[in-house]
Amino acid sequence: MKEFELIKHFFTKQSVNRKDVVLGIGDDCAVISPIENQNIVVTTDTLVAGVHFPFDTSPRAIGHKAVAVNLSDLAAMGAKPSWLSLAITLPDIDETWLTEFCQGVFDLCEFYNVQLIGGDTTQGPLSITITAQGLTPEDGYLSRSGAKSGDWLYVTGELGDAALALQHITGRVDIDANFVDAIKEKLDYPKPRVLAGQAIREYASSAIDLSDGLIADLGHICQASNVGANIVLDDLPISDIMLETLGKTVAIDTALTGGDDYELLFTVAEDNKVGMETALINTGVAITCIGQLNGSAKITTTIDNKPVSINAQGFEHFSKDDH
Amino acid sequence: MKEFELIKHFFTKQSVNRKDVVLGIGDDCAVISPIENQNIVVTTDTLVAGVHFPFDTSPRAIGHKAVAVNLSDLAAMGAKPSWLSLAITLPDIDETWLTEFCQGVFDLCEFYNVQLIGGDTTQGPLSITITAQGLTPEDGYLSRSGAKSGDWLYVTGELGDAALALQHITGRVDIDANFVDAIKEKLDYPKPRVLAGQAIREYASSAIDLSDGLIADLGHICQASNVGANIVLDDLPISDIMLETLGKTVAIDTALTGGDDYELLFTVAEDNKVGMETALINTGVAITCIGQLNGSAKITTTIDNKPVSINAQGFEHFSKDDH
Repeated sequence: MKEFELIKHFFTKQSVNRKDVVLGIGDDCAVISPIENQNIVVTTDTLVAGVHFPFDTSPRAIGHKAVAVNLSDLAAMGAKPSWLSLAITLPDIDETWLTEFCQGVFDLCEFYNVQLIGGDTTQGPLSITITAQGLTPEDGYLSRSGAKSGDWLYVTGELGDAALALQHITGRVDIDANFVDAIKEKLDYPKPRVLAGQAIREYASSAIDLSDGLIADLGHICQASNVGANIVLDDLPISDIMLETLGKTVAIDTALTGGDDYELLFTVAEDNKVGMETALINTGVAITCIGQLNGSAKITTTIDNKPVSINAQGFEHFSKDDH
Repeated sequence: MKEFELIKHFFTKQSVNRKDVVLGIGDDCAVISPIENQNIVVTTDTLVAGVHFPFDTSPRAIGHKAVAVNLSDLAAMGAKPSWLSLAITLPDIDETWLTEFCQGVFDLCEFYNVQLIGGDTTQGPLSITITAQGLTPEDGYLSRSGAKSGDWLYVTGELGDAALALQHITGRVDIDANFVDAIKEKLDYPKPRVLAGQAIREYASSAIDLSDGLIADLGHICQASNVGANIVLDDLPISDIMLETLGKTVAIDTALTGGDDYELLFTVAEDNKVGMETALINTGVAITCIGQLNGSAKITTTIDNKPVSINAQGFEHFSKDDH
């Protein structure tokens, strides 16, 4: 186990050096200096090999994704990411693997000025747990529970590509060879919507990041906010590659139920739409209005203005009349 | 995997409800309110089944220990524990197991008014990662690096009993049946020295918690503080059970190298000894002076005022002349 002490050196090679970190890696704990008039926002996510990523995923992608899924949670709160703690369990020590894994971690950390302040390295089946922390102004955070009937429903980016990539990797779908890399990039290197989250903080009534799929995560907002929602399926942002590969029906199903998108789903009152759209312009993040909240306790979907039904696994495929 | 959502309910049954937690379990992140003139102290520790505890350890003990090892790190910084994030990976869902595990977690949390603010539940080989946070006054934390030549070396409690318990469990040592429960308690339910850590904060020049064994952890202080140390082996606090079971020579070896004690090792300048001892009285924690720091770059040991040599695995067993 002494070697496991040595690998800590891999985790000290970061260029970020924040002023609010009084004591970083190397003692029993890290020490952070007080932050006046700021809330601290905390999240923890674990990735288990074979469950959250295929065993043969590149170590750089694993490092990137372990950080990205946590920053995505911070983004959904409108927080500015600040500090990470990283606990990694490794079956053995492979220096090349560790170097690439750390590159994935540190590239994303540097981009957002996030400092790794500590962690733990242990021996066992591959698994990574990151606790990420960020800052928001006092009482200036987003949550799942502020949405109101009548608010508009938005998503960032495009939906379903990560699920499509996983279907390709597991041999369930063939993707045109020209598009495989672009689609795999969506699964392996999700972009946490950190800047978009901060931009919408003053305008959105609720937000969540899409990790479990649109229907499931919208369900969390509806439950926490005590509202229902209708999704206009015609308006779902779906990539051309997905449309070409799966056809419209299956593509919509994948966009509704596929996980791992790490886009933001958020709600905005009519009065805040213009402010929100203006605030987002500088982030360069595309958004799409995909529906509206209502007073029902249900999530419904329409296509061509006609209701179509969905079930827990997604929406029920269109009846013959709809084709 | 939907069931894994359900087990989150096990983790919401806590009685602690801190005023500084603005938003607890149930959203993308927890939100903590600003703390003026306080440092935030952060630590992360992972326990892997079969590595950090035997597979047949009771779930309550696993829950207790997962929290205790983290609070022990906070104690070594002189911090007051505040918030926990808990990531647990489980092979399957066993409600009895989870109920007992949570009891172990929450009993210790309640004792120290620590609130579970979030976490993640995933499927895979059993492993628990906790990130614990605490508070210290600004610039009022302990570290490994403040020790000076001439400072006195202290430990809390008794050393080696946890290692003895592990030797018993793995069949390498027989313990008198009357003592087995008492010794196993030391391994399964370590007491983090939270109050002692806060009491010595103003007086100690350095501190660390004993997880890897006295020699290894003293080595961390010596390296970080650029000092050497002599340990007076005659003065090591060793339980009567360990002395009776192992005899003096092996008992001392176990006290020097056995891990999992979670006692505090700390150093105090001559001028601060009385203040430190007075401050500790109210905590009811026993301490023992076991040696002194010096300007060498080595850790040495004496017995009957005569030097005995140690190696990386512990001290070299006494030569025939010493018996």
